[in-house]
Amino acid sequence: MSKILKEVIISNKKYAKNFNTKGNLQAAPIKKFAILTCMDARLDPAKFAGLSEGDAHVIRNAGGRVSDDAIRSLLISYKLLGTEEWFVIHHTDCGLEKFSNTDIDKEFNLDSKNKIDWLTFTDNEKSVVEDVLRLKKHPLVPNSIPIYGYIYDCKTGNLKEVFEATNLGI
Amino acid sequence: MSKILKEVIISNKKYAKNFNTKGNLQAAPIKKFAILTCMDARLDPAKFAGLSEGDAHVIRNAGGRVSDDAIRSLLISYKLLGTEEWFVIHHTDCGLEKFSNTDIDKEFNLDSKNKIDWLTFTDNEKSVVEDVLRLKKHPLVPNSIPIYGYIYDCKTGNLKEVFEATNLGI
Repeated sequence: MSKILKEVIISNKKYAKNFNTKGNLQAAPIKKFAILTCMDARLDPAKFAGLSEGDAHVIRNAGGRVSDDAIRSLLISYKLLGTEEWFVIHHTDCGLEKFSNTDIDKEFNLDSKNKIDWLTFTDNEKSVVEDVLRLKKHPLVPNSIPIYGYIYDCKTGNLKEVFEATNLGI
Repeated sequence: MSKILKEVIISNKKYAKNFNTKGNLQAAPIKKFAILTCMDARLDPAKFAGLSEGDAHVIRNAGGRVSDDAIRSLLISYKLLGTEEWFVIHHTDCGLEKFSNTDIDKEFNLDSKNKIDWLTFTDNEKSVVEDVLRLKKHPLVPNSIPIYGYIYDCKTGNLKEVFEATNLGI
């Protein structure tokens, strides 16, 4: 068994030992909202947004991008599990801002026939606006869901507002 | 400003106030591993797996499924940011086990031309094995990465091993 696997299992046993009433929580998020953010190891959405177990859906991928899969998750989140507000949170010093699709294709020795859209971006704020708008314009996303676009600052822990698409606008 | 947005901003200010040395963390995960798990509100991977900020990548979507986007994220995780071990963690009482693709298509009034693969499943353990194997067999995933398949029990907080694909076997 690897050192990492052992550590995770020991940590999990400690957590489960003091699980208390958390076993009674239901699937539908208590606070009826969802956060889409980056997989970056420095980000702990439960801590930086003040979530307890049961409060909110958290979707994470490389970049916190509005990929087809993030859309699948958010649609399930609202339609089957009742979320009513969504956050899209990118962050400073993101890997996807430092590399281009071509750079990453090269790392994997992918030729032009097999290239992948890694969802890299060159302007962090623009990428948030682009992602919020992609959601807001999606035919299956109801206009009633406000979508908040933010950037998390890895140096300070602060969330900075970039763009808010409410039911009143756009 | 919505009640939820206000709460998130207040929680974030408190978190950032005591940020201390976390601002010095680098993008590459200290513990060199990644977890793929479900967006379910009851799951807090940092708590159930004992992660501090900076330790590990966390990727989350509806079901913790190995979607194309989860693969994109994991490939970036290992190739650009050095993770060497991966966990795929589904959980009990998952929404994707309770609904079929047809059920969810109906919720959205999607006709047969516009149906979506919502990545639902009927057997939780099988879905973990299927996902771990999809990763393990992917041409861009190196054989050296062990992939641990687990199910998180929402009633107890315990992780239960389902399947481990190491560099030696599959």
